[in-house]
Amino acid sequence: MAEIKTVSFIGSGNVATNLAKSFYRKGIKIDIIYSNTIENAQLLANKVGAKAVNNPTEIDIVSDLVVVALKDQIVDAVLSQIKINNALLVHTSGSINSISLAKYSNRYGCFYPFQTFRKEFQVDLYEVYLFVEANSSKDTELLKKTARLFSNKVVEMNSKERKSLHIAGVGLNNFTHYLLSITKQYCKENNLKTEYLTSLLTQTVNNSFYVEEALSLQTGPARRGDVKIIENHISTLESYPKYQKIYKAISQLILDEFHEDKFQL
Amino acid sequence: MAEIKTVSFIGSGNVATNLAKSFYRKGIKIDIIYSNTIENAQLLANKVGAKAVNNPTEIDIVSDLVVVALKDQIVDAVLSQIKINNALLVHTSGSINSISLAKYSNRYGCFYPFQTFRKEFQVDLYEVYLFVEANSSKDTELLKKTARLFSNKVVEMNSKERKSLHIAGVGLNNFTHYLLSITKQYCKENNLKTEYLTSLLTQTVNNSFYVEEALSLQTGPARRGDVKIIENHISTLESYPKYQKIYKAISQLILDEFHEDKFQL
Repeated sequence: MAEIKTVSFIGSGNVATNLAKSFYRKGIKIDIIYSNTIENAQLLANKVGAKAVNNPTEIDIVSDLVVVALKDQIVDAVLSQIKINNALLVHTSGSINSISLAKYSNRYGCFYPFQTFRKEFQVDLYEVYLFVEANSSKDTELLKKTARLFSNKVVEMNSKERKSLHIAGVGLNNFTHYLLSITKQYCKENNLKTEYLTSLLTQTVNNSFYVEEALSLQTGPARRGDVKIIENHISTLESYPKYQKIYKAISQLILDEFHEDKFQL
Repeated sequence: MAEIKTVSFIGSGNVATNLAKSFYRKGIKIDIIYSNTIENAQLLANKVGAKAVNNPTEIDIVSDLVVVALKDQIVDAVLSQIKINNALLVHTSGSINSISLAKYSNRYGCFYPFQTFRKEFQVDLYEVYLFVEANSSKDTELLKKTARLFSNKVVEMNSKERKSLHIAGVGLNNFTHYLLSITKQYCKENNLKTEYLTSLLTQTVNNSFYVEEALSLQTGPARRGDVKIIENHISTLESYPKYQKIYKAISQLILDEFHEDKFQL
């Protein structure tokens, strides 16, 4: 089977940074890092021994693989200016249907790490699911083989399933993150130690994620329909408008779930 | 110092069940379990060798400690019918101001385990914070000593702080639980394996809880103000109205947080 020996990255953000470093560490040569901001391209290029480019029309791909990690809405505008030369072209988006890359290369697909990334922290991909897809079984195998260099959880997945998974990931990651961040901020403002919350959080994650039919384990004032406590809490939160807003919104959702729209906060 | 040798429980729900069993296992005698439903009182009483009672006027306390674990709004109605005989009377509520028990006993306070309980699962309290409060330093010490029988995280906390902590706990536990349960349900309906989400969840909890200034690590379409993707997701969720509702509500909160009310879903 062929092998991926060289890769170029279109994008230099959180996903591109984590993937480029992962490839680089496995001895794969990184040819080009493109970003429309040259400083960003250069920052990543320096870390992985690549050439930084900020003008897409300058790019004439000679790499075996091109990884596009851009905001979904600018993918087309950038790719349409690059000479891909029928390299294997993959995007990293949960939402994009891979067939939309067909106009740029005969060989296309997706390389989707199911994880949240920040440039500042390199994530070990070993326990991270990597979902791959390509328009030929040969390239699917090639992507699988490449993904297995740094993940032991490589799965083939089509664009429709990937979109569903992406939506679930937004709920799981982005929303939980927001909720926990705001809660922590509220504790800080009230001089409550974050460590008070640690064992509760562990139990919560266990009950809600690792137990079947978790919804039936819901507890709390909204579950009980205890609107008096909820309203008391909401008024207590007068000086914490952000936490108050999220408190009210999710309490209403739980009330609706368990009390058939009987209560309106 | 005096010692708690006997305890009665007013209530037989999730909190009473977990605490009564914890006391019982440490060799403390459980005298009475009260519930207005005799079957519930009996079920717990059988497990801890106590007497089940469903008529509060029958109760004439001889125990050293009385633990009230009822819904907040019925505490007064029940306690006003019981002969407490100036036993040490503690409630287990995050919201109740302990001074409201002063009319039932000269010795009163709070014994608040900061954890989510279900009757069905006995929780090991060793790593669970137990917040105690009493109206005399002697009884505060007595409660601390008793709490330390089964928890290594015993902290004195007043009613005002406890209420703030309780509100944080609702956000942390109840809301996260709801969010994760609905996300899991959505995955199931879409034939996506729950295990795909595991490493993402671990990373999420780490980023949002164990990192300072977690809010600045927020990612995702709402963080970026990518309303096109959000609206696409919301319409994709047409057949999953519950997940759609929560998706829309929290996306709006995050949009407001990072984009100053610029976007309305």
